[in-house]
Amino acid sequence: MDRSQLHSLRVRPGDPAHLDRRDQSDRLGILDKAEAQRAVEQLVTRLSTLQHRLFAEDRRSLLLVLQGMDAAGKDGTIRKVFTGINPQGCTVVHFQRPVGAELDHDYLWRVHQAAPARGQIGIFNRSHYEDVVAAYLTGVIDDEERQRRFGHIRHFEAMLTDEGTHILKVFLHISRDEQALRLQARIDDPEKRWKIESSDLAMHEQWHAYQDAYGQAIEATSTDVAPWYVVPADLKWVRDVVVAQLLVDALAEIDPKVPAATLPPGTKVI
Amino acid sequence: MDRSQLHSLRVRPGDPAHLDRRDQSDRLGILDKAEAQRAVEQLVTRLSTLQHRLFAEDRRSLLLVLQGMDAAGKDGTIRKVFTGINPQGCTVVHFQRPVGAELDHDYLWRVHQAAPARGQIGIFNRSHYEDVVAAYLTGVIDDEERQRRFGHIRHFEAMLTDEGTHILKVFLHISRDEQALRLQARIDDPEKRWKIESSDLAMHEQWHAYQDAYGQAIEATSTDVAPWYVVPADLKWVRDVVVAQLLVDALAEIDPKVPAATLPPGTKVI
Repeated sequence: MDRSQLHSLRVRPGDPAHLDRRDQSDRLGILDKAEAQRAVEQLVTRLSTLQHRLFAEDRRSLLLVLQGMDAAGKDGTIRKVFTGINPQGCTVVHFQRPVGAELDHDYLWRVHQAAPARGQIGIFNRSHYEDVVAAYLTGVIDDEERQRRFGHIRHFEAMLTDEGTHILKVFLHISRDEQALRLQARIDDPEKRWKIESSDLAMHEQWHAYQDAYGQAIEATSTDVAPWYVVPADLKWVRDVVVAQLLVDALAEIDPKVPAATLPPGTKVI
Repeated sequence: MDRSQLHSLRVRPGDPAHLDRRDQSDRLGILDKAEAQRAVEQLVTRLSTLQHRLFAEDRRSLLLVLQGMDAAGKDGTIRKVFTGINPQGCTVVHFQRPVGAELDHDYLWRVHQAAPARGQIGIFNRSHYEDVVAAYLTGVIDDEERQRRFGHIRHFEAMLTDEGTHILKVFLHISRDEQALRLQARIDDPEKRWKIESSDLAMHEQWHAYQDAYGQAIEATSTDVAPWYVVPADLKWVRDVVVAQLLVDALAEIDPKVPAATLPPGTKVI
């Protein structure tokens, strides 16, 4: 994939996310599905090697934050990119609507608990960004609180980074039409119908409000240390290549080193 | 107790802590031990009432951060002030040297997990301040990292405050001579000797370095929303009154309200 195209997905600090100007079915120069699948295969092999080194080094961690509208492909991306990675070095946390003890604490409490341990790749399937998007649109917080939370999140992520966590944030960007198709397919599939609630359809109706709120959250929190990438996601094979490539690039940047042996060469087991 | 004297214990944002100018055996106008004990009794009763309301309201929480040199009286203060308080609304967390999974995360990870739930009074017996004092003096972090951590801590505490936690930070201030007496008493008491390690004696030798580092941490992190109080602690009875009074004042400021009944008056159980 062309590096400059990958780079163009990154939202620079302070820049608007321009979700409405970004083509959700962009192919980013990838020829076809077959080429994409070959690329993903190679990237996953590379990812596996780098992840092993990250685990062995046991000093730093990688956090992938995955956000997107319903049916944007969060679960699918995780399945495609991380199947084949040693689960011992990889933790997926699925954040659902907060309940119980979670509600008894600030919104970052459960997120901080779920932060990847050193040596791990952590994947957030949804995240604290629900607390500045959905929480705002459903009236749980007002705009003043949302702005304050943007500040909390920037500081929280900067702290994680300072302390050894490399952060990568991905917004899976699908079109309203593609979402409609996918939701309809789920409703029509007796095996998948359970995934849909009436609230999902309500969110589909509020498409533009959600796009705006995501755009604002991305603009407010895309920083040098914890950048957002807006990944075109109408074409699943494009999405998979991009996310796999971003992860490989992030790990290559971390450049984890397998620790030196503690036993001197020539040590004999007696 | 005279309010202005209590106020003088507070370190204003940006002000030096001036630990060396503060009298560790200050009586703050309290006549004698008997008067202090009567005052503590009344304050604990008041604290109990307010804590019940905080619990019933279930919206906000109070966090008391207790720091101090070895033998400064952290355990004793907790025993004296919180015995008699409903433990259902009160959680004490004793932070020891981080181990295992704690070391696998940033230093605020375990602290955030231990944050008091809504409706609770949380007491930190030692805290993240060890990560900017002891960690610095033992060479775990350098000054640049320490300064960065001061920033993290200010932001972290501001976030907790924004989200409903009232924070009160108390430095129990004892003199070097009083510490020597208490440590010696522990060593001489076969029942208490286990509490002492050679590292405690090493810290006693580094008294001035620790005082300086505490002073710098207090100066850097005493904010309007999460202020530090330097409490004279050579006289245990003064210390107890002051901490009890600070807690009562904090809860009075929170002013928790018992929620309105959901059943209308006149509802009959059939």
